[in-house]
Amino acid sequence: MSQNNAADRLIERILQFQNPSVVGLDPVVGQIPAAYGLQTKDDSMVAVAAAFEAWGRDVIDAVWDIVPAVKPQTAFYEAYGYAGMRAFARTIAYAKARGLIVIEDAKRGDIGNTAAAYAAGHLGRVAGLDGEDHPSYDVDFLTVSPFLGSDSLKPFIETAIAMGKGLFILVRTSNGGAGEVQDAEIPDGRTVSEMLADLVAAQGARCVGAHGYSSIGAVVGATYPEDAIHLRARMPKSLFLIPGYGAQGAAAADAVVALDPKGLGGVINSSRGVLYHHTSESERQTISRSDYQARVRAAAIAMRQEIQRALLLRRS
Amino acid sequence: MSQNNAADRLIERILQFQNPSVVGLDPVVGQIPAAYGLQTKDDSMVAVAAAFEAWGRDVIDAVWDIVPAVKPQTAFYEAYGYAGMRAFARTIAYAKARGLIVIEDAKRGDIGNTAAAYAAGHLGRVAGLDGEDHPSYDVDFLTVSPFLGSDSLKPFIETAIAMGKGLFILVRTSNGGAGEVQDAEIPDGRTVSEMLADLVAAQGARCVGAHGYSSIGAVVGATYPEDAIHLRARMPKSLFLIPGYGAQGAAAADAVVALDPKGLGGVINSSRGVLYHHTSESERQTISRSDYQARVRAAAIAMRQEIQRALLLRRS
Repeated sequence: MSQNNAADRLIERILQFQNPSVVGLDPVVGQIPAAYGLQTKDDSMVAVAAAFEAWGRDVIDAVWDIVPAVKPQTAFYEAYGYAGMRAFARTIAYAKARGLIVIEDAKRGDIGNTAAAYAAGHLGRVAGLDGEDHPSYDVDFLTVSPFLGSDSLKPFIETAIAMGKGLFILVRTSNGGAGEVQDAEIPDGRTVSEMLADLVAAQGARCVGAHGYSSIGAVVGATYPEDAIHLRARMPKSLFLIPGYGAQGAAAADAVVALDPKGLGGVINSSRGVLYHHTSESERQTISRSDYQARVRAAAIAMRQEIQRALLLRRS
Repeated sequence: MSQNNAADRLIERILQFQNPSVVGLDPVVGQIPAAYGLQTKDDSMVAVAAAFEAWGRDVIDAVWDIVPAVKPQTAFYEAYGYAGMRAFARTIAYAKARGLIVIEDAKRGDIGNTAAAYAAGHLGRVAGLDGEDHPSYDVDFLTVSPFLGSDSLKPFIETAIAMGKGLFILVRTSNGGAGEVQDAEIPDGRTVSEMLADLVAAQGARCVGAHGYSSIGAVVGATYPEDAIHLRARMPKSLFLIPGYGAQGAAAADAVVALDPKGLGGVINSSRGVLYHHTSESERQTISRSDYQARVRAAAIAMRQEIQRALLLRRS
């Protein structure tokens, strides 16, 4: 039964690996090792997409037995047209085949049948010409942007619940300008973040899993730990996706404030901190794929240790 | 010179056709005529994408000499994986080849290098493995969601200005729940919509074209005409993308309130009202492609007439 609940699927992997940290997949030309581009002289978007796909497989192979999930960032694949999206779909399928939960970071948001199309394409099934429905990207979790209001979230929530999938709705993001919109006040005195937290909690009550957390979760950045504690109180059963750790400046102690004493309740993401640690451009040019994989693996293990240590320190 | 300014390119087409109305491209299985699916028995996403591509060409051929622009809605193509995005890219290229301005309705929004990747992929150029940059979707205008704050908009604004492209930043959307976030108040007493309008006006001042309007524009729904008048006062030189006319319930008189006496200053979108006017499912099953094209053309002409009439009535 719990396999039909995305929160349970994610938490079971977190428990298995004793690790609430996840690895973002953010491929960038000029940052991924040159070894991924050497197999072709083609300069087209197809060649870049092939490099991203090979890189994604190597990263997944390096971390699949350490982390519960990967978080591919749609933007980096999408920039390379249909070839990029083919590499994206294949990367998702490969991650799932290795047992990883896939959290797609796409921050989609729209209204009515447009929102329904995004939800169907990423989480659900799309209509074929034969009258049958077919899975498309078929990820486990999708990030969603709530700027257009609660009616814009409804198609995402309904699709997620119907399909046994999950959402992370942007509630409090990790960037410097986050508060400009998110701290604004609605007529009853709540901030936009508080209103969204209450919406996440209310909708999430519809799909709380066996481990006590809901598949309708929230993005709450690690860079504002006081806000994370405050928002946790409003969303006691919501899974948090916690960005901002590592390259964006938040410490492990800040990243874990919203987790429970068992280390559950959310996942902490690091992308650049795990992926990009070349000390120089000449190293990026010369490092082998296997050496790169060893570094990614070491960085993912180090992240797990830092998070585990922060959880222990908080308990004591 | 004005060809390097997206607002000027759009306005020149509006003047040429005496028409500020644009046609949305929202392909939906079960709504596009069955004639577009009859060429294949394949039930895969590739077959749907092929149907969307043929449909998009026919719609473009039916309206290219009537309307200044088309507004493809990314969600409907994206739902069908890489094949959908290939159809999307080809549809954009075909529209541009016919002289249409392309307004991509993707409502993207993210931070830092992720926002930069979206901007590069949709409006700008992406890095190849050869050290050269290449155009990707290469649309004229992109819709952008500002939930993450002004720092999240910066990469989009910088790319748009550098490339002679444009943006429509969501300021006041057309849906029922629009006000939940957009009417919230920031500490200085402005609403989120007002703050965003002021940001659009300030940034837009950097790229005002020869016709007096800026390429950094705003989405302002036709369903809230009082808000549109109010926001126009804060953004006198911003192009508006005006959704909500037709199927979403706004009348032509409401849709034109933010246009100037020459009928300039924005574009009014209709999607379903132009695309989907089958009277029954059996008609959708049997209508020929050429009959469908004739109906789309007639609907686009009718829309132009309604908008022109509303502009005349307002002047008198």
